[in-house]
Amino acid sequence: MEKIVFQNIIIEALKEDIGSGDLTTNMCISDESESEALIIAKDSGVLCGTEVFQEVFDILDKDINIEFNYIDGDKLNKGDIIGMVWGKTKSILKGERVALNFLQHLSGIATITNKYVEVLDGYKIKIVDTRKTTPLLRVLEKYAVRVGGGFNHRHGLYDGIMIKDNHIIGAGNIKKAVALAKKNCPHTLKIEVETSNLEEVKQALSAGADIIMLDNMSLPEMKIAVELIDGKALVEASGNMGDRDLKEVASIGVDIISIGSITNSRRSLDISLNFK
Amino acid sequence: MEKIVFQNIIIEALKEDIGSGDLTTNMCISDESESEALIIAKDSGVLCGTEVFQEVFDILDKDINIEFNYIDGDKLNKGDIIGMVWGKTKSILKGERVALNFLQHLSGIATITNKYVEVLDGYKIKIVDTRKTTPLLRVLEKYAVRVGGGFNHRHGLYDGIMIKDNHIIGAGNIKKAVALAKKNCPHTLKIEVETSNLEEVKQALSAGADIIMLDNMSLPEMKIAVELIDGKALVEASGNMGDRDLKEVASIGVDIISIGSITNSRRSLDISLNFK
Amino acid sequence: MEKIVFQNIIIEALKEDIGSGDLTTNMCISDESESEALIIAKDSGVLCGTEVFQEVFDILDKDINIEFNYIDGDKLNKGDIIGMVWGKTKSILKGERVALNFLQHLSGIATITNKYVEVLDGYKIKIVDTRKTTPLLRVLEKYAVRVGGGFNHRHGLYDGIMIKDNHIIGAGNIKKAVALAKKNCPHTLKIEVETSNLEEVKQALSAGADIIMLDNMSLPEMKIAVELIDGKALVEASGNMGDRDLKEVASIGVDIISIGSITNSRRSLDISLNFK
Amino acid sequence: MEKIVFQNIIIEALKEDIGSGDLTTNMCISDESESEALIIAKDSGVLCGTEVFQEVFDILDKDINIEFNYIDGDKLNKGDIIGMVWGKTKSILKGERVALNFLQHLSGIATITNKYVEVLDGYKIKIVDTRKTTPLLRVLEKYAVRVGGGFNHRHGLYDGIMIKDNHIIGAGNIKKAVALAKKNCPHTLKIEVETSNLEEVKQALSAGADIIMLDNMSLPEMKIAVELIDGKALVEASGNMGDRDLKEVASIGVDIISIGSITNSRRSLDISLNFK
Amino acid sequence: MEKIVFQNIIIEALKEDIGSGDLTTNMCISDESESEALIIAKDSGVLCGTEVFQEVFDILDKDINIEFNYIDGDKLNKGDIIGMVWGKTKSILKGERVALNFLQHLSGIATITNKYVEVLDGYKIKIVDTRKTTPLLRVLEKYAVRVGGGFNHRHGLYDGIMIKDNHIIGAGNIKKAVALAKKNCPHTLKIEVETSNLEEVKQALSAGADIIMLDNMSLPEMKIAVELIDGKALVEASGNMGDRDLKEVASIGVDIISIGSITNSRRSLDISLNFK
Amino acid sequence: MEKIVFQNIIIEALKEDIGSGDLTTNMCISDESESEALIIAKDSGVLCGTEVFQEVFDILDKDINIEFNYIDGDKLNKGDIIGMVWGKTKSILKGERVALNFLQHLSGIATITNKYVEVLDGYKIKIVDTRKTTPLLRVLEKYAVRVGGGFNHRHGLYDGIMIKDNHIIGAGNIKKAVALAKKNCPHTLKIEVETSNLEEVKQALSAGADIIMLDNMSLPEMKIAVELIDGKALVEASGNMGDRDLKEVASIGVDIISIGSITNSRRSLDISLNFK
Repeated sequence: MEKIVFQNIIIEALKEDIGSGDLTTNMCISDESESEALIIAKDSGVLCGTEVFQEVFDILDKDINIEFNYIDGDKLNKGDIIGMVWGKTKSILKGERVALNFLQHLSGIATITNKYVEVLDGYKIKIVDTRKTTPLLRVLEKYAVRVGGGFNHRHGLYDGIMIKDNHIIGAGNIKKAVALAKKNCPHTLKIEVETSNLEEVKQALSAGADIIMLDNMSLPEMKIAVELIDGKALVEASGNMGDRDLKEVASIGVDIISIGSITNSRRSLDISLNFK
Repeated sequence: MEKIVFQNIIIEALKEDIGSGDLTTNMCISDESESEALIIAKDSGVLCGTEVFQEVFDILDKDINIEFNYIDGDKLNKGDIIGMVWGKTKSILKGERVALNFLQHLSGIATITNKYVEVLDGYKIKIVDTRKTTPLLRVLEKYAVRVGGGFNHRHGLYDGIMIKDNHIIGAGNIKKAVALAKKNCPHTLKIEVETSNLEEVKQALSAGADIIMLDNMSLPEMKIAVELIDGKALVEASGNMGDRDLKEVASIGVDIISIGSITNSRRSLDISLNFK
Repeated sequence: MEKIVFQNIIIEALKEDIGSGDLTTNMCISDESESEALIIAKDSGVLCGTEVFQEVFDILDKDINIEFNYIDGDKLNKGDIIGMVWGKTKSILKGERVALNFLQHLSGIATITNKYVEVLDGYKIKIVDTRKTTPLLRVLEKYAVRVGGGFNHRHGLYDGIMIKDNHIIGAGNIKKAVALAKKNCPHTLKIEVETSNLEEVKQALSAGADIIMLDNMSLPEMKIAVELIDGKALVEASGNMGDRDLKEVASIGVDIISIGSITNSRRSLDISLNFK
Repeated sequence: MEKIVFQNIIIEALKEDIGSGDLTTNMCISDESESEALIIAKDSGVLCGTEVFQEVFDILDKDINIEFNYIDGDKLNKGDIIGMVWGKTKSILKGERVALNFLQHLSGIATITNKYVEVLDGYKIKIVDTRKTTPLLRVLEKYAVRVGGGFNHRHGLYDGIMIKDNHIIGAGNIKKAVALAKKNCPHTLKIEVETSNLEEVKQALSAGADIIMLDNMSLPEMKIAVELIDGKALVEASGNMGDRDLKEVASIGVDIISIGSITNSRRSLDISLNFK
Repeated sequence: MEKIVFQNIIIEALKEDIGSGDLTTNMCISDESESEALIIAKDSGVLCGTEVFQEVFDILDKDINIEFNYIDGDKLNKGDIIGMVWGKTKSILKGERVALNFLQHLSGIATITNKYVEVLDGYKIKIVDTRKTTPLLRVLEKYAVRVGGGFNHRHGLYDGIMIKDNHIIGAGNIKKAVALAKKNCPHTLKIEVETSNLEEVKQALSAGADIIMLDNMSLPEMKIAVELIDGKALVEASGNMGDRDLKEVASIGVDIISIGSITNSRRSLDISLNFK
Repeated sequence: MEKIVFQNIIIEALKEDIGSGDLTTNMCISDESESEALIIAKDSGVLCGTEVFQEVFDILDKDINIEFNYIDGDKLNKGDIIGMVWGKTKSILKGERVALNFLQHLSGIATITNKYVEVLDGYKIKIVDTRKTTPLLRVLEKYAVRVGGGFNHRHGLYDGIMIKDNHIIGAGNIKKAVALAKKNCPHTLKIEVETSNLEEVKQALSAGADIIMLDNMSLPEMKIAVELIDGKALVEASGNMGDRDLKEVASIGVDIISIGSITNSRRSLDISLNFK
């Protein structure tokens, strides 16, 4: 990731935590004190966020050293020593919580994403994220999805065309909506249509949609849809996919499964910083 | 909450999603089109974030109307109509995802907080949050904890004194650390010491700590600690409390239980916007 | 356009011009003075930027009234009264230059874009912009291109895949570069490859590019390229297109012509504000 | 120029282009790849913006090296190698377009300014800019005017007094307007009055204006004005000066010619980055 | 003053005080409670900052009403009721301290400025400020100087030419420094030279300085300087002027006296908000 | 202090002064010129702000060297050489005024604070600041109070509970207000009640306030209050304390004296930069 893309997020997070100053550390720790601390996995999962972790300390104190034993995407077991931090005690204490909050949050997303990716090992299918991300952290969360082996859907409203039910109602019908999009959209973007039944799938197909999303359909319905589409458009399965049997969905031949819960309902991976 | 405290978060979230413009909506929906949509609970839980939801649309379009049938803190059942949104279709579609992301995220926190609060109904004890919050959203998440019936621990490093193991090592021992804090800290703040065994509890007590945190102790250990402290300091139980039997902990007489997982490992409450 | 997308640009432009205050106006004009002024076209062209013009004054003084006789996209003749502004003299004088700078700049882009669009009237082809825009004004300039009848290419590096010569060198060859892109890119984006000779066109085609850009090719070369591609990919002609005979280029069957000079070498449309 | 004056413009321009990340480069180029590229003039003109060009890469990657063979203000011929860039391929590709957009834009302004300056070689006269600049880039554009051999008029409404027709109407007449300005303005600023006929010139002169602008006057009218003023005030000729015979204007003895089109209607100088 | 010039200062000041929320008010005051409060002068002086005071509450709560009995520049006696505030109690309490901090600070500056202005009543002389202002508040403090009857010197390094001793050393001598400035500076600005003895005064005069500052000179020295200059340049007396007998200085014929202490060593005017 | 806490203040202050560029220095001083300058105390007092002074130049030019002979908190006599600055003349001149404005402002606060602290030498009492600080500089001013030997009261409305008369009216009475605060406030904060007579002192005491402020009471009244409170709460004396006999107040046994005038009515310490 480009630092310019996420650096401000780190700065704001540090300001959020430090505010007008770290009272306890400033009162109890001398400027000269130096320490070493180990970054330890307290649960198993997929590591994500080492660059962000590093940047937290770079912003606070250029002289803090960090050495990682693992890189983003590596599998961690409980007890693994992810890395080591050493330098001024004051700086380590001031950055500790923010650095861990990011590392735990992103590793949590990479871990859950990877769980789904592994379930589908062997299938020619992509797990993708959605726009159901934590406000202000989307760029980092979408990175974590990639680290976990998933892929990204559009980043926002500005870099992808997704014609949903309400756009269809607004335009009149699927045919008109797709025609409007085809006429005006940048030639670099594909056009996706969200459908909730087979009738809509047929309309999206004949309107020339590049991608057809099957939203909250039953397995048999999806199966027919895939047969109808027959490779003329990409097929994306969506709708509470986190709670469904993904292998079943994959086996009927959809190309993509999008899962909102990988970003909005995950568990942080437990990681701690232990001073030596 | 004061709008000046959270308004920027909303603006940045909207910019994150809208970027250089909502392509699909701008291409498919006319400026004149107006719609109504219902905000519907698709799961049961505690509502939180109506003011934020409102602000999302106020920023996009002052003429969007929102009427809520519930207020923050109300219990929702699956299927409940939380409220209604009406106005320009374009504006509703542009704000929909961001508004829901906030509402789901905050309601998720209020819901899990409330679950713990209800477990301890009847006990004279407070559930409090930690600094294990999502970067950049702390002020909103701490609000959600209060809405769920919990209380707030310090907001950051700047508004509370918490002497942790590393501060103790840095200062020499508990006595010296507390003395340093007592000498320099604003007279408006209490001094909390984190302890991990009974020896440390005794030292914190004799050093004059106002609050003693029992970190990751066994139940019997905590019990002795409470007896030792005997009301001379507030007692806070901490350390993976989300996975423990809170009633047991409460019954031995601690004053406060802090739980990190209410903010960093929750499930968003499922809420959707259904156009009529 | 969504106001949240461009409002900050206006605020910064006003701060740039007003700085610590409008000395002349504050010294010479009374608070009570009210005026009317006409917005007059001093050259012919295509109007663009009325919403921006309005916003300049909305930010300075909510009570300034503006009435436009034309809307964005309308053709203007020299002498046309584009609209009228009335309200406090002080506010009109403070916003005048900034409002006109935007209106002239954007109308200049819409005008030159439209000139090319009209040349190609009757051809099934799209004029698109490039990333050769004025720093910080891209979102407005790309809007002006659409107002002039053109279309947008990708907005930046983040919303489109464009494999250029240096990406090809970096990846090894076209085949490898396209394969890497196909493997990793969001399924919502098409893949464009820039080619500078027929050999590269063939490689791009067999690699499965969705869009093939013919960069700085001669007319006969482009003609062969179009025949080779034969509808299996979109064809974009590029490279100093502003100086070439666009009809010739269009007539050989390319789908898109991209022109950098519509945004980076245009003439502002002469528009002035005349006080009554 | 002080870096603090323009650094934010560069950062915002990079964010505008990179957004959530450079998709193509991140997918096709390895982290290890290094490249060299030449900055080449593809047209003749005056170079401007090397410091800005440098800063673009300094922000992205401190390890990018740039060596310039020319400095700002140097004349370039088509084909001249302006300089060389080397370092990580990824960083060069990410900054290329933004760096060139600035360099081309500013060199375009320096070039056109210089054209007018050379026309007037031998005359004791200054070419100055106006406030008709591109919003948000004024500080850079005014720098480019200086690099091209021109001089700056006031930067904005805050650092110069310019009494225009509407200020005169607002104050009652020229005498009153100048008197108000003389009474209140900082003693460090001169007072300029815009006039459109000889009667106004006389009034401005007798009111004690320090600078008298002759706006859109005919050559004979300007000549009489200069004689009337007779060195008692500086004389500035203005009004579509870009389209007039500047030697004629200069020969009648005005001190300053201000030209809006050097900033708002220029052609970018064609410069490209060629990878070796 | 233009709101766009100072609005951000107010917003930042409110964020500085309110931070993550006004704990006491949110806990003790109901949303429904309404109050009235009087703004009372507890000392005599010159009022300044009513517009800023108003803006503090406008930002917090559009429905707060404020009525002033005095305007900026009015003389206040101890006990005068400056105005009244009424509306939601919560909003008044949240804005009270920030609004008063501004009002007291600015009135303090207007008051001390006015004291010097009154001392010199009858003399044709201007009291001006310096750049010795409180960081981040210069635009407001310079406004307060004007309200107190003083005038502004240059606002910063960008809107005035002031050749100081170190510029002279850098350029070689006064003659060279002034020549450099004359050659390059915008024609809208005068050139001021700081001198510390009569020799320098002579040099500045012969170099053609528009303004000559007499820095820390004795009265007899200043007297000779004024005679030497004899109206050929404006004369500014400077250097601890706050501690000198201004009438004496004025009587020898200097045009301007600049006083740093009016902005950097003043006493806030005591003003309080009394709830009814 | 953490640099992240105050760095933005410095950047904004530099932008405020430099604006679009330092005209005089850019015209008169060559890029090569280097200088040395001494930082000299022109009055006696307590030094404060060396880190801020350093940061001003670090931001402008990393190669400026500064060596201090004193550290924050040291006593200065008139004529003392505080330190030395050397490097590019241009950079020193550009940063000089801003660096001195901070140093003088903060040293002024440390000096006055220290004066009060010394008066009370031998008494077991703390001098604390208030929220009557200069808008936008609170974090620096509260630092200066500590440097002068004082202590900080709460930083803002968010990190301390202070129940004032209007909160009491809003809640009904002191008992109710304290009860509300006790119920809802973070367990890490003490509760302070402002009282203006003995009746209120009694109520605050029986309500269980942790800190009782005696506002504007007479000495005998305060004496009785202290006896009533008898160590059951901390006692803070407040109200124009800057004008009272602090020894008398201290001798009756209050714990804390808060003084608004140390931050809002101080005299800058006279410090200058003398070029060699």
